[in-house]
Amino acid sequence: MADNGKLVKEITSMEDDFAQWYTDVCVKADLIAYSHIKGFMVIKPYGYAIWENIQKLLDARFKATGVQNVYMPLLIPESLLAKESELVQGFAPEVAWVTSGGTEPLTERLCVRPTSETVFSDFYKDDVHSYRDLPRLYNQWCSVVRWEKETRPFLRSREFLWQEGHTIHATREEAEARTQQMLNVYAEFLADEMAIPVIRGRKTEKEKFAGAEATYTVEAMMHDGRALQSGTSHFFGQKFAEAYGIQFTDRDNKLKYVWQTSWGMTTRVIGAMIMVHGDNSGLVLPPHIAPVQVEIIPIQQRKEGVLDACRRAEKELIDAGCRVKVDDTDKSPGWKFSEQEMRGIPLRIEMGPRDIAANEAVIVRRDNGQKCTVSLDKLGETTAALLETVQKEMLEKAQKHLESHTWSVTGYDEFKDTIANKPGFVRAMWCGDQACEDKIKEETGATSRCIPFKQEKISGVCACCGKPAKYMVYWDKAY
Amino acid sequence: MADNGKLVKEITSMEDDFAQWYTDVCVKADLIAYSHIKGFMVIKPYGYAIWENIQKLLDARFKATGVQNVYMPLLIPESLLAKESELVQGFAPEVAWVTSGGTEPLTERLCVRPTSETVFSDFYKDDVHSYRDLPRLYNQWCSVVRWEKETRPFLRSREFLWQEGHTIHATREEAEARTQQMLNVYAEFLADEMAIPVIRGRKTEKEKFAGAEATYTVEAMMHDGRALQSGTSHFFGQKFAEAYGIQFTDRDNKLKYVWQTSWGMTTRVIGAMIMVHGDNSGLVLPPHIAPVQVEIIPIQQRKEGVLDACRRAEKELIDAGCRVKVDDTDKSPGWKFSEQEMRGIPLRIEMGPRDIAANEAVIVRRDNGQKCTVSLDKLGETTAALLETVQKEMLEKAQKHLESHTWSVTGYDEFKDTIANKPGFVRAMWCGDQACEDKIKEETGATSRCIPFKQEKISGVCACCGKPAKYMVYWDKAY
Repeated sequence: MADNGKLVKEITSMEDDFAQWYTDVCVKADLIAYSHIKGFMVIKPYGYAIWENIQKLLDARFKATGVQNVYMPLLIPESLLAKESELVQGFAPEVAWVTSGGTEPLTERLCVRPTSETVFSDFYKDDVHSYRDLPRLYNQWCSVVRWEKETRPFLRSREFLWQEGHTIHATREEAEARTQQMLNVYAEFLADEMAIPVIRGRKTEKEKFAGAEATYTVEAMMHDGRALQSGTSHFFGQKFAEAYGIQFTDRDNKLKYVWQTSWGMTTRVIGAMIMVHGDNSGLVLPPHIAPVQVEIIPIQQRKEGVLDACRRAEKELIDAGCRVKVDDTDKSPGWKFSEQEMRGIPLRIEMGPRDIAANEAVIVRRDNGQKCTVSLDKLGETTAALLETVQKEMLEKAQKHLESHTWSVTGYDEFKDTIANKPGFVRAMWCGDQACEDKIKEETGATSRCIPFKQEKISGVCACCGKPAKYMVYWDKAY
Repeated sequence: MADNGKLVKEITSMEDDFAQWYTDVCVKADLIAYSHIKGFMVIKPYGYAIWENIQKLLDARFKATGVQNVYMPLLIPESLLAKESELVQGFAPEVAWVTSGGTEPLTERLCVRPTSETVFSDFYKDDVHSYRDLPRLYNQWCSVVRWEKETRPFLRSREFLWQEGHTIHATREEAEARTQQMLNVYAEFLADEMAIPVIRGRKTEKEKFAGAEATYTVEAMMHDGRALQSGTSHFFGQKFAEAYGIQFTDRDNKLKYVWQTSWGMTTRVIGAMIMVHGDNSGLVLPPHIAPVQVEIIPIQQRKEGVLDACRRAEKELIDAGCRVKVDDTDKSPGWKFSEQEMRGIPLRIEMGPRDIAANEAVIVRRDNGQKCTVSLDKLGETTAALLETVQKEMLEKAQKHLESHTWSVTGYDEFKDTIANKPGFVRAMWCGDQACEDKIKEETGATSRCIPFKQEKISGVCACCGKPAKYMVYWDKAY
């Protein structure tokens, strides 16, 4: 960047220390503040405005598939949580327990929801009677609490915001189709709106959700080559239905258990967005998600006519459907550039007396630094079109990064060497035996990210043990 | 109503038992379900869609005044809560305490937020340094927990959804103006969108919020004449600023404490809407809030052309900006009418073969049962205009009800007799002494609702003790 103000110098470079760079960006771009309880963060206005845009766009995609929003209780009685044994084993070590209400101890302790399969199941049990009541396609936007040991803003916190969809169906086929459908909604949302390409696939038995028959996942690659699970969709079969007694009378007049799914996306995706698109000047936001898409920065703003011209440009951009802001504070232009870059605002428009005299403005792209000069007569349409170009090219750039950092390996030495020395996804054949998965994790730090839907036979044998292979798997170190 | 189907017969009439009528409507109109924990309800899709409309409209009004949304931690350490003594005394008896996280007991117990003054104050303390950082106009949409003894859907529950705005300012004047401004936002929102007229005023010392210097309130009157506090806005002065150390350097280079406000509206307003507008056929929703504004019900729907005509009408209404649904299930028209009435859908359009042949449809208003016949050529514009008429007339009707149930009294016998026998607000002079307030509450069950901004001198002396009066006060039994 031409103008490296003081702000920029304050963040660690990503090459020096990626983890510190990430934390610096979260704080300096004004996304979060730390609270006084470990693992509980304050999401500041700029961070929350990003989440509001994510919610709005994702919620519309859910509703287009027939999903309805509801709200379920925050607290879950221990006995209710305990009904499904795998789930309780999976979550018991990480829940927060309420033991008194008001001045009196509770007769049964209540946990703050870590996820709501149990509460939805308990509700559905009384709500559904006949095949006519099915499917139920419910979702809620809320916060959940999981008592994590290590915490990092957005990526892993003791409280986080998310949506959790919980659906029930009359047939296995319909429930399986819904599980896939919602995974595709996530993948398309991430690509179209957040400019994040993903690999779609199924989790191994070891990595799947507690209580699920199958877990599907979308896996994104961060700038440092690590994987980040960015959304999951679970098929439960009839496990919860049996544990909670969710039955319905089918067309054939027989009493049957429902088939169930759940699917969730969290504020983690904000972390993904930071680590996929960010650079050493700070955040880089995809235009569809950016709370402010264009910042107009006046040059020599005290000169007559400059601020007026900026205001006219602002109005034109609003009319063209852009989210725009004029920075007319008394900071220097260099400082303003640096702030706009730190906050990842996709386009900057510079307007000084000479530009205005020439009926022009300079537009600078945040994603690649490219400058162009535009006629003020076409400012609205040019800017709106450029935002779409930026959105598209950010996805292409991330897609290229993902592809150029994906390595196909056959033998175990090559596997270990690649994980150790080449950041990115490793594609390798696997026998399907958890022993190999455990060994790989222990010896390389990589976990199986997914068994991708798009299978490709790299070799005939497991990259770890050499026995006949069942699947091609994506492996990586992960956040 | 012409068509009293089975559904309608299932609810208690409001004249027989208003409380039971209310509960029946909540359940039969599909707004809520009871969960298995006392005081924690499930907000079902129809109830939640109403809340989403409330959120959308109210949030836009907040943002128009410069408010920004944030998200603060759900859990509050006991020591943080305890810093402001009045607040902790007010809330300690009704909070839920988390005492263990994961498998280990916590060193300090954490309460589930009952309100977030403490957390915002703790955040602002580090976030604000100079007068340039002020004002901060933050709000959050979230759930809160208060361990109430008696609970009723929407009106009083142990968990409820709300928004809580928390602002800090450089001067007393600015903070006081903001407190008033937000009360006006509530009053205008309730009138314009929810068709609920309110009395604006100040709470007495006895009734104000724990820790506040002044609490302003909007008080609505339910159909049974009782009051419901529908939104409050608090001026804290510098009390929290001093307790939490929120200081800034002012223009004069001196270190000063900020001036603070908070203001909230909750899912209680859904309860208010039910009790202001509902009738013996169920819910009556104001069009601006109704998830479905128009329901098209085909008559003899198996006759050729009927469903097609309904679909064409649906499309026209969507194009006219209406939220519309065709009920093409195989239930009888009478059953559908009854369901549409129970759910309070503002307009019903009936379309049978004869109507269609005559190029007409019948529109029935939910609020007053009026029917009219409309040409299909003008269906979109007529319906859109009629929705606005309904919205306006619902407010007028509620306003008339409020006015015709407001009684001005002078002596204490008249006061007691009016409270006992005439449902509604009692306007009476008050000396300002809490002893009279306590006596009135004990002897009549009425509480002071507010000292209205629009004062009027009914007499010169307190209606209770006969000493010189300071204020005219609204009194009523309340929810």
